[in-house]
Amino acid sequence: MLQTWHNELEILYPQLVKWRRHLHQNPELSFQEVKTPAMIAQILESLGIEVRKGVGGRGVVGVIRGGRPGKTIALRADFDALPINDLKDVPYKSQVPGVMHACGHDGHTATLLGVASVLNQNRSNLAGNVVLLHQHAEEQTPGGAVSMIEDGCLEGVDVVFGTHLTTSAPTGTYLYKEGLIMAASDQFNLTVQGKGGHSSTPHETIDAITVTTQIIHHWQYIISRKVDPQKPSVLSVGSFHAGLAPNVIADTAEISGSVRTYDADVRDQIEREIRKAVQAICDDAGASYTLDYKRGYPSVNNHPKETKVFVQAMEKAGFTDRLSEMTPLMGGEDFAYYLEQIPGTFFFTGARNEEIGADMPHHHPMFDFDETAMLDAGKAFLTLIHHYAVESAEQKAAEPIS
Amino acid sequence: MLQTWHNELEILYPQLVKWRRHLHQNPELSFQEVKTPAMIAQILESLGIEVRKGVGGRGVVGVIRGGRPGKTIALRADFDALPINDLKDVPYKSQVPGVMHACGHDGHTATLLGVASVLNQNRSNLAGNVVLLHQHAEEQTPGGAVSMIEDGCLEGVDVVFGTHLTTSAPTGTYLYKEGLIMAASDQFNLTVQGKGGHSSTPHETIDAITVTTQIIHHWQYIISRKVDPQKPSVLSVGSFHAGLAPNVIADTAEISGSVRTYDADVRDQIEREIRKAVQAICDDAGASYTLDYKRGYPSVNNHPKETKVFVQAMEKAGFTDRLSEMTPLMGGEDFAYYLEQIPGTFFFTGARNEEIGADMPHHHPMFDFDETAMLDAGKAFLTLIHHYAVESAEQKAAEPIS
Amino acid sequence: MLQTWHNELEILYPQLVKWRRHLHQNPELSFQEVKTPAMIAQILESLGIEVRKGVGGRGVVGVIRGGRPGKTIALRADFDALPINDLKDVPYKSQVPGVMHACGHDGHTATLLGVASVLNQNRSNLAGNVVLLHQHAEEQTPGGAVSMIEDGCLEGVDVVFGTHLTTSAPTGTYLYKEGLIMAASDQFNLTVQGKGGHSSTPHETIDAITVTTQIIHHWQYIISRKVDPQKPSVLSVGSFHAGLAPNVIADTAEISGSVRTYDADVRDQIEREIRKAVQAICDDAGASYTLDYKRGYPSVNNHPKETKVFVQAMEKAGFTDRLSEMTPLMGGEDFAYYLEQIPGTFFFTGARNEEIGADMPHHHPMFDFDETAMLDAGKAFLTLIHHYAVESAEQKAAEPIS
Amino acid sequence: MLQTWHNELEILYPQLVKWRRHLHQNPELSFQEVKTPAMIAQILESLGIEVRKGVGGRGVVGVIRGGRPGKTIALRADFDALPINDLKDVPYKSQVPGVMHACGHDGHTATLLGVASVLNQNRSNLAGNVVLLHQHAEEQTPGGAVSMIEDGCLEGVDVVFGTHLTTSAPTGTYLYKEGLIMAASDQFNLTVQGKGGHSSTPHETIDAITVTTQIIHHWQYIISRKVDPQKPSVLSVGSFHAGLAPNVIADTAEISGSVRTYDADVRDQIEREIRKAVQAICDDAGASYTLDYKRGYPSVNNHPKETKVFVQAMEKAGFTDRLSEMTPLMGGEDFAYYLEQIPGTFFFTGARNEEIGADMPHHHPMFDFDETAMLDAGKAFLTLIHHYAVESAEQKAAEPIS
Repeated sequence: MLQTWHNELEILYPQLVKWRRHLHQNPELSFQEVKTPAMIAQILESLGIEVRKGVGGRGVVGVIRGGRPGKTIALRADFDALPINDLKDVPYKSQVPGVMHACGHDGHTATLLGVASVLNQNRSNLAGNVVLLHQHAEEQTPGGAVSMIEDGCLEGVDVVFGTHLTTSAPTGTYLYKEGLIMAASDQFNLTVQGKGGHSSTPHETIDAITVTTQIIHHWQYIISRKVDPQKPSVLSVGSFHAGLAPNVIADTAEISGSVRTYDADVRDQIEREIRKAVQAICDDAGASYTLDYKRGYPSVNNHPKETKVFVQAMEKAGFTDRLSEMTPLMGGEDFAYYLEQIPGTFFFTGARNEEIGADMPHHHPMFDFDETAMLDAGKAFLTLIHHYAVESAEQKAAEPIS
Repeated sequence: MLQTWHNELEILYPQLVKWRRHLHQNPELSFQEVKTPAMIAQILESLGIEVRKGVGGRGVVGVIRGGRPGKTIALRADFDALPINDLKDVPYKSQVPGVMHACGHDGHTATLLGVASVLNQNRSNLAGNVVLLHQHAEEQTPGGAVSMIEDGCLEGVDVVFGTHLTTSAPTGTYLYKEGLIMAASDQFNLTVQGKGGHSSTPHETIDAITVTTQIIHHWQYIISRKVDPQKPSVLSVGSFHAGLAPNVIADTAEISGSVRTYDADVRDQIEREIRKAVQAICDDAGASYTLDYKRGYPSVNNHPKETKVFVQAMEKAGFTDRLSEMTPLMGGEDFAYYLEQIPGTFFFTGARNEEIGADMPHHHPMFDFDETAMLDAGKAFLTLIHHYAVESAEQKAAEPIS
Repeated sequence: MLQTWHNELEILYPQLVKWRRHLHQNPELSFQEVKTPAMIAQILESLGIEVRKGVGGRGVVGVIRGGRPGKTIALRADFDALPINDLKDVPYKSQVPGVMHACGHDGHTATLLGVASVLNQNRSNLAGNVVLLHQHAEEQTPGGAVSMIEDGCLEGVDVVFGTHLTTSAPTGTYLYKEGLIMAASDQFNLTVQGKGGHSSTPHETIDAITVTTQIIHHWQYIISRKVDPQKPSVLSVGSFHAGLAPNVIADTAEISGSVRTYDADVRDQIEREIRKAVQAICDDAGASYTLDYKRGYPSVNNHPKETKVFVQAMEKAGFTDRLSEMTPLMGGEDFAYYLEQIPGTFFFTGARNEEIGADMPHHHPMFDFDETAMLDAGKAFLTLIHHYAVESAEQKAAEPIS
Repeated sequence: MLQTWHNELEILYPQLVKWRRHLHQNPELSFQEVKTPAMIAQILESLGIEVRKGVGGRGVVGVIRGGRPGKTIALRADFDALPINDLKDVPYKSQVPGVMHACGHDGHTATLLGVASVLNQNRSNLAGNVVLLHQHAEEQTPGGAVSMIEDGCLEGVDVVFGTHLTTSAPTGTYLYKEGLIMAASDQFNLTVQGKGGHSSTPHETIDAITVTTQIIHHWQYIISRKVDPQKPSVLSVGSFHAGLAPNVIADTAEISGSVRTYDADVRDQIEREIRKAVQAICDDAGASYTLDYKRGYPSVNNHPKETKVFVQAMEKAGFTDRLSEMTPLMGGEDFAYYLEQIPGTFFFTGARNEEIGADMPHHHPMFDFDETAMLDAGKAFLTLIHHYAVESAEQKAAEPIS
């Protein structure tokens, strides 16, 4: 039966591509998604799937109820885009200046819609239910997962699975790992307030730009000298904005950045050191500042049992050669919150294909992924549902009544 | 007669304030001036003064022809504003967000209009002509002076004078100096092109922000270690713009800045060192860049004879106690170009008055000047014209024919 | 029988302390050891143990031949000290200014001498031989191990074991791990040649000190931005020497440092980036340089089988509760070379005891260790020899001839 | 008569060279001079000149009493050397490793000895006295001048003159200037106390080297951004010493440096900013420090009248073409203290000669000067004495009694 499901998904491939490209052309920023959830809800409804909209704000939750009782399995796909200018030269390029699906969430969404379609037409064979978690705002703290959970999206759900397409691995591969696989991710905004003036008289000013570059420079030592080198951590400044004219010394500089850690102590240490350095450099310069440091998603901690289930189900489905254990990533994911509530695992689906230019890092203005990887991701989801809602159910049925 | 002229100017003071405040509320950026030159031309024309518009692009040149032959003296006032947000809380605050008369050019313009008015009604007494140089775009290279000169604004002009209101000196004072008084002023734009990516994987990117902060750091050593400390020089970065999101590593950073020097060798040295450092840091990082280094105004070099004429005329007019010799400034002025063509001098008119809050540095978002200083500036202009077009003419007339 | 051996070692404890303290008071730098190997050889000879001196230069190798045939097991202890000033206030403080046993090699040596004593008096019970590797120069590349191996110290040896006392773990514990446990360790010396001069005229000089501080600054970005954060690496500058007077600009600066990595690609990358940064900064400054980058010890890679043997033998000997798996360390060890030749494992023996001040990091001028840990280290060695030369031999003897 | 004196000095030239080279081979550091003052005293005594030794510690003061009453004129020559390694390849190279006459004080001393010899044999013609100030310790604060003055070396002295040989100007020239000609010169020693440790675990240490490089880096901004660019100032770090081994993180770093300023406010500002930056960076790092900031010599402020006397006397003596006005120097000189007590002037005597390699900056390990410049310096001294003790005296004698 699994093979049939996989075939049915393959038949839907042109539809998946169509959906994905429509999303790609119409990206929406985190917490600003309007058309995207509307489109998802409309498709699910047109399939006859039970839909709840505005979950936790902008999420869409579909439920496919099986013909028999069984477990409730949730599959999650995020659908927000990023504030990046799409620089690709493709027909399905973003039509929104400065906004781009540069992380593959469009692919996640199209995949889950395809999976929903296949499962829905096979729902009579299912023991248990499948919950479709179409989540908004993964890219920006506090993320959409928290509010969707608060709004009840995991109620009655037994296990949750999610995947991320990745150009770090070739199309056709799957990456899994028990335990910590993604970092805690914090973000900060810093505004340095100096005193502006004429560029020819720096001594009468407090130059917000050089104060801020000194802070950034100082921060490098946090990673290079102060943090245990055995405990991976990253401190990146993502934006820097100050000044309007070459001959005016800027009175204000605004920067933002993110911090990634696995270890809770290191997470605390880096925040502490960031604050200390800002204080020291600003005091020295006579500048004032506001530092808004927001704790983001915790580490993604895959449950051992469900990770093993994933591997075994995939092996049974014939994907043995395509599976490999991954090393942890520094990226963050608010899938972490689902795994704090219920068991589950998060895996990666390879989507790199150099031949078609799908080999840029995520968040790059030239980012693209191999669309056939949507089939791989979808097949993995179908394999997991088949395991829980068909095989395990049959097995259970076959067990002698004790 | 000079005393009468001065009195006539004083009577016009409310009008000067009105003009100045109108300009202050309606500032226009360099090379984007439209309403300002239109207003100037309209006022001059309404006075019956001969006007040429669009001189060198956006300049306005008026000519007041005296009743007798004599020298032609030019008086210059610039009229552009700056890309600064006006943060003052006054009724005449800028109504254009992000644009502000933060250097006093509105005052220069109102002053020259008042002077024109007085001279025009006394034109029959003048031996020679007065040329009114209302100049656009002083704040931004290549400046308006060059194109106005190319467009003939100095044709037939024998001497040129200009002044700048300054909050560095108290109202009621005048500052003069022979020789170099203002620095050569160059500007540059640098774009560093790295490789963007996810903030969690810096090693897969070339982080345009840290490459650029390293360049700025490196540049400090040019001033602190490489340039002769006896030769004043300034290198200021005025703007820094990179990145859009805290969790995306920026692929591009754009900065702009300015360099001030008196010494021609140091001017060359700093440009060379700026280029060398950018090359070295970008090469090391694997980044590419474009560096647009524009030579700006040369040093302002006051002619000795005309500077002495200014001092003597002012002393004769009773301003002895209010005159003092100034130390050179690091600021630049495209008045330099006029002085490369014909004799003249550029002096400063004090406009600081702590009691009314007129004590912030120029280019500061809280900048304002003491409006009564416009009378001081205007009286100095009238004194100079009186010297050349009345006194010297009479003296000459009295000379025996040789 | 093992218990008896352990008891015999305990009886020797006062002797171990005496030996250790004598070594502690008379530390010798790497490749300058004269009295230390002489003392070791003298003690071994006095015990009647067969000794080869000057092995690989300064090493001392003892052999204890068992009463029956069997495997040959090597035990290694290093004996060099460090260029650190001993700041402890203890009676056995270093008597050599600037030289100190700040890493515990004195303890290793005393331990192995004690073990040798016990094994020698029980040699008739041994199946096989025990080789005592007293190694010089562990602290300084190229290290003593390489030349001792070249000089045949491992000839006929089947397995090798070594241990390091550590104040990172409490006395009474043992740390083990299969695979990579210690980093590759490279060292470098950099001499920057600028141009000296008077401190008042920096522009006529090339200031070797600021050029070098710029290089060190630049290097921080290698760790903070350029290396994969998942791959632990450290770049430390250990010394900086330049200039003699406050009012003379130094023409030369000399620094030295070390680099620690596990990953071979990262090892290459960091060397490459170090070289690139030096080149870029020196070129920019007009300085020349010599950079001597010496590849040091490779990573210590414990053999899985022998690591398991260690764990099992220790568990059998009743140490189960005291064993724990360690996380890899960034430190380097030339024990790596032995493990490239033959099987074996390197473990750590806890020696921290806050109550007696034995809790400073290694290489610290206040470093000391808990001397009772020498008994722990010695018992582990005896346990291993017992396993191979008594138990396994008996087991083998008991096996049916096939 | 002056011409005769000049001729007599020329005849002494071989002797001057001999004295100078002997001093050059036997340099002594500031406040450690023993043989040098002994040699000076011995020469003066052998000439029959009245000598006071140990003036202010190590100074030597000679007095030549003229045959008639008149003014008392002091001539000063300093005699200390520097902690620099002499790298020249000349027969008279320094024989003291690490110590070198790298500033020309050996030449000053030989010159004044020659001048003393000439004046002594002409003493009967002198109206007034000549005081020979052979001063120790000019290179190191607090300098020898202060204590010599306290010890009475200026008692009864009316005017004081001094000169410095300089490779910044060609042999045969003289440089003079009224007013400020040399900077105030302060020196500092900074010890940063971190926490040492193993180079592989920076997070367990406080790395004194990177804390100190951060301080030095931070200090650049004092000069580049915080000080008025119109007010020349220099902050140079002259020495940096930390650490002994590449694989040990240094717990202590010691640096020294000097600060040069003309302006008293800037002098205060820089000290304040140096302290502030050290405090900020050390606080941030958790390091402690001791900063010893010593105010050094004040600015050298040449008296206008005596400077004019110098110029006029030299012109009268036929040196008009060889005189030029100098720009101020950033170097310091404790001659400043003499000029705080009594009138006088300090001038420079050109000693650059590329053809013989005498063109390196002062304090450079290859520094040398053109020895014939000693004749020029000596002739200037003789000219001054001739002016005061012969001409002026005659003129005075010729004046009618009023």
